Amino acid sequence: MTIQYPIGTKLSPSTLSLRTSNTQYGKRGMGFEEQINQSNQYYLGKNIAVIHKKPTPVQIVKVDYPKRSAAVIKEAYFRHASTTDYNGVYRGFYIDFEAKETKNKTAFPLTNFHEHQVHHMESCLQQEGITFILFKFSTLNRVFLLKAQEFIAFWRQKHLDGKRQSIPLSYIEKYGYEIPIGMFPPIPYLEIVSQLIEQNNKF
Amino acid sequence: MTIQYPIGTKLSPSTLSLRTSNTQYGKRGMGFEEQINQSNQYYLGKNIAVIHKKPTPVQIVKVDYPKRSAAVIKEAYFRHASTTDYNGVYRGFYIDFEAKETKNKTAFPLTNFHEHQVHHMESCLQQEGITFILFKFSTLNRVFLLKAQEFIAFWRQKHLDGKRQSIPLSYIEKYGYEIPIGMFPPIPYLEIVSQLIEQNNKF
Repeated sequence: MTIQYPIGTKLSPSTLSLRTSNTQYGKRGMGFEEQINQSNQYYLGKNIAVIHKKPTPVQIVKVDYPKRSAAVIKEAYFRHASTTDYNGVYRGFYIDFEAKETKNKTAFPLTNFHEHQVHHMESCLQQEGITFILFKFSTLNRVFLLKAQEFIAFWRQKHLDGKRQSIPLSYIEKYGYEIPIGMFPPIPYLEIVSQLIEQNNKF
Repeated sequence: MTIQYPIGTKLSPSTLSLRTSNTQYGKRGMGFEEQINQSNQYYLGKNIAVIHKKPTPVQIVKVDYPKRSAAVIKEAYFRHASTTDYNGVYRGFYIDFEAKETKNKTAFPLTNFHEHQVHHMESCLQQEGITFILFKFSTLNRVFLLKAQEFIAFWRQKHLDGKRQSIPLSYIEKYGYEIPIGMFPPIPYLEIVSQLIEQNNKF
């Protein structure tokens, strides 16, 4: 399904997840989000896991209740998410992750992340949740899983060293796990998760 | 914070979770939802668990992008949730639940539930998630936790026997667990969850 926007471009519903007024970010992330949603649909359909994207948080200001039809939201604003975008359950394990995409070829900009999301990841780790980030370098067509532990280590370092505005691809290659892009599912990230569970008996 | 609605009544943001145009349901559920959100805040603050209410799902149709200010959603509709309202992680366990309130004193109306939510609960159970419903009988000021297994058993029976439109309080008393309403947190549901985990070594 497509939605006709006032600016005249057709955008799929997945674009609606953009969290800022910067439409470039939304467009850039669209393909990857759709790939992940399709993967989650695949996992759900095969009874492999129950993982969903959370709805886009919206601050509703004005609602009309027309007679004999559904309530219409007339004024609302996108809010920043206080958690990550995806969570669910896989073989009894709590799964929690964020997914981000960049066109950059050598590093991932940290401006895509917010401190409260990092806090959320820390809280999930403390509760023994399996917590990670999926990074897509869209120009390179490469996808990586980086455990939240490794991401947070870098993020905290960034705050000690104000010059770091991005995570080098080399760091993600070294500490992360590359996910081969497929068809069914497009992003088979649970294969990596499963391997990590087997190896460590926990994440 | 309160929001001025066109109808002139002040409603807290929690009311915005109403999923239908029936404002009575929203008002009826408001107090309980706030109690649960406060409980989750308490658990989060004490590093006991990370459990959040999901944002209200909204179908966005029209967005304006005014210059030099945030995007404004100009037309959107409430959607039915395809999952339950609350999920998160507690000591490595995946937690998933729905919370519902009624003024009825003897039974809980099943019209508050949708088949796709029941499907979701079944999928969560299959993945060994801890899945349940919190029922509040607001007139009686009594709150119960009913495991999804017991709820689904009744729900399926309802479909075999078309006459059942509600779950009797006596069924919930027999198969559920009463939660003493408190202050910090208002609804200490994790105490029951914790006991059930200890008893069964799983839910």
